[in-house]
Amino acid sequence: MNTITVNASRAYEVRIGSGLMDTAGKEVSSLFSAEKCVIVTDDNVDKLYAEAVKKSIADEGIEVFKYVFPHGESSKCAATYVDLINFLAESDLSRSDVIVALGGGVTGDLAGFAAATYLRGINLVQIPTTLLAMVDSSVGGKTAIDLPRGKNLCGAFYQPHLVLCDTDALKTLPADIFLDGCAEVIKYGCLGNAELLEHLEKQRLDFDVDYVISTCVSMKRDVVNGDEFDRGMRQLLNLGHTAGHVIEKLSNFGVSHGRAVAMGMAIISESAQNAGMCTKDTSDRIVELIKSFGFTLNHGYTKEEFLPRFVSDKKRTGSSITAVIPVSFGKSKLFKMTIEDFKQFILTGVETWK
Amino acid sequence: MNTITVNASRAYEVRIGSGLMDTAGKEVSSLFSAEKCVIVTDDNVDKLYAEAVKKSIADEGIEVFKYVFPHGESSKCAATYVDLINFLAESDLSRSDVIVALGGGVTGDLAGFAAATYLRGINLVQIPTTLLAMVDSSVGGKTAIDLPRGKNLCGAFYQPHLVLCDTDALKTLPADIFLDGCAEVIKYGCLGNAELLEHLEKQRLDFDVDYVISTCVSMKRDVVNGDEFDRGMRQLLNLGHTAGHVIEKLSNFGVSHGRAVAMGMAIISESAQNAGMCTKDTSDRIVELIKSFGFTLNHGYTKEEFLPRFVSDKKRTGSSITAVIPVSFGKSKLFKMTIEDFKQFILTGVETWK
Repeated sequence: MNTITVNASRAYEVRIGSGLMDTAGKEVSSLFSAEKCVIVTDDNVDKLYAEAVKKSIADEGIEVFKYVFPHGESSKCAATYVDLINFLAESDLSRSDVIVALGGGVTGDLAGFAAATYLRGINLVQIPTTLLAMVDSSVGGKTAIDLPRGKNLCGAFYQPHLVLCDTDALKTLPADIFLDGCAEVIKYGCLGNAELLEHLEKQRLDFDVDYVISTCVSMKRDVVNGDEFDRGMRQLLNLGHTAGHVIEKLSNFGVSHGRAVAMGMAIISESAQNAGMCTKDTSDRIVELIKSFGFTLNHGYTKEEFLPRFVSDKKRTGSSITAVIPVSFGKSKLFKMTIEDFKQFILTGVETWK
Repeated sequence: MNTITVNASRAYEVRIGSGLMDTAGKEVSSLFSAEKCVIVTDDNVDKLYAEAVKKSIADEGIEVFKYVFPHGESSKCAATYVDLINFLAESDLSRSDVIVALGGGVTGDLAGFAAATYLRGINLVQIPTTLLAMVDSSVGGKTAIDLPRGKNLCGAFYQPHLVLCDTDALKTLPADIFLDGCAEVIKYGCLGNAELLEHLEKQRLDFDVDYVISTCVSMKRDVVNGDEFDRGMRQLLNLGHTAGHVIEKLSNFGVSHGRAVAMGMAIISESAQNAGMCTKDTSDRIVELIKSFGFTLNHGYTKEEFLPRFVSDKKRTGSSITAVIPVSFGKSKLFKMTIEDFKQFILTGVETWK
């Protein structure tokens, strides 16, 4: 088991290894003097892991409640959030009690936002069960729900108190959900780790899970430590996300987050190459790697559908936008530009991968 | 004009004086590079001040939107919050834009929570228009909405970027709303300022507004600076609130916050005296002062209605509760006790002021 310590406004540990769900109860009881616990999970994960986690926590003498919601991005909305907050209140949780987010990114975001705001903050343990949630959304404290106007428009910065990445959960993960996480893994390589990219070029889907998750979590930790509140370098983590979010929204979330990020990385690489910000070789090698994992890169939308959507991007401050652009194989940089310039810049990528 | 600087996780200034609403625009444009602004206000305050504030901000070349909700505590709910968040998104506000909370405590709490969570945090200017909001809820960063299960159960710690207490607003304030604020003013005296209490004993409702607001804001600033996240001394500010919240809830918010706090202070003073924690003279003098402002102190509920309500108190951690108890005239202290002991302790006060 690897342990990585994150020194954000609250210091906490991320553990990566096998069998962590079965020992979750001991971790919870050693960290908190909790009398009650609410496990938040979706109906898919509920069937697979909720009972084991519940038993492990109940064995420590903690009263465990379970909040189960329908799986999928459409549950990450205000209605589910309000329902969950009321569930916590009706369960009479106090500040010393604990919420366990058991599931993928939707669960982590939703339960995390509820934990951030119920009683203005309650103990939170993240147990991510997808590759994507392990390498990305469970670390760093970004929580959010979607609004009709766009993804993640409402939320909070709220660090978890503990993260348990049980790699056993990856064994039952459907192939397409595993692939979603691979897009984020490739993203980490592109933004600052050529060695990771080379490992992925060689191993493709058969990569070393412990090495890759630990590497990504360490990278995210370093970025988050330096910029918890997302005003600077943390924006690097958005590589492929600005265009990716537009694709998710245009498809009404029919295109998954990982696939959308993969498309977004292909778009931004193409645009970077056309703008002379990276070589054709860099762009081609990034695209080849993404393709080798089995991603489809054509998004199917016109520039007329695509471009107007950039105005509602959260990363925008006023009329400018900070773009994350690959400059070489294993290195990306931030560039601030006006929205108009950004639309001009992104156009060639959007058209190439139409 | 007095200016008090609050050094919380974000440093900001509280200005107290006349004419501040008319110069709000200049303050906003000097602090932020905002292109848009949403003024959040209720239908009562809208008629009185919204146009002046709107004009002042629009004169600086900022596009101003207005979100008006029905006045009253019942608007401080999840439904209004979600509606407001969606209004901000539809108005396409970015992180560099600004929300102005123009109104009393309900407006400040609601708009503050929206500002804390929209895009995970956006610029916030508080312009409190009631005495209560000026001395209490606009400073310190506590924001919240009510849930069916209880008051302020969902919210965030989010410091404003600027607070403008325009004392002109007090001139149009209905007498009963002004009185609500007086309960909080008396509270500040009771928790740690005998000089303020003596001023109030002498002046009653005709107190020196600038001195009193500045004194209360300074006291709150000192407490908040020492304990932003409400884990210790900040709980002093809850004097009279634990019982007060129960009265508000039992009356379905028919009893206003200030009146409920006045009743809560009378209850806790009586209980303190009976438990030998303060002298009869102290308790009598506090009660006399409260009465001299015109507060009615009988709540009208039985202990059977009252006592079970204490379990959902937010200040509770696990099965214990931190009570704020006056120990002399102008001094209160925190006492941690089990819920059962607290119920025993509070019983005599609840019965005396039935």
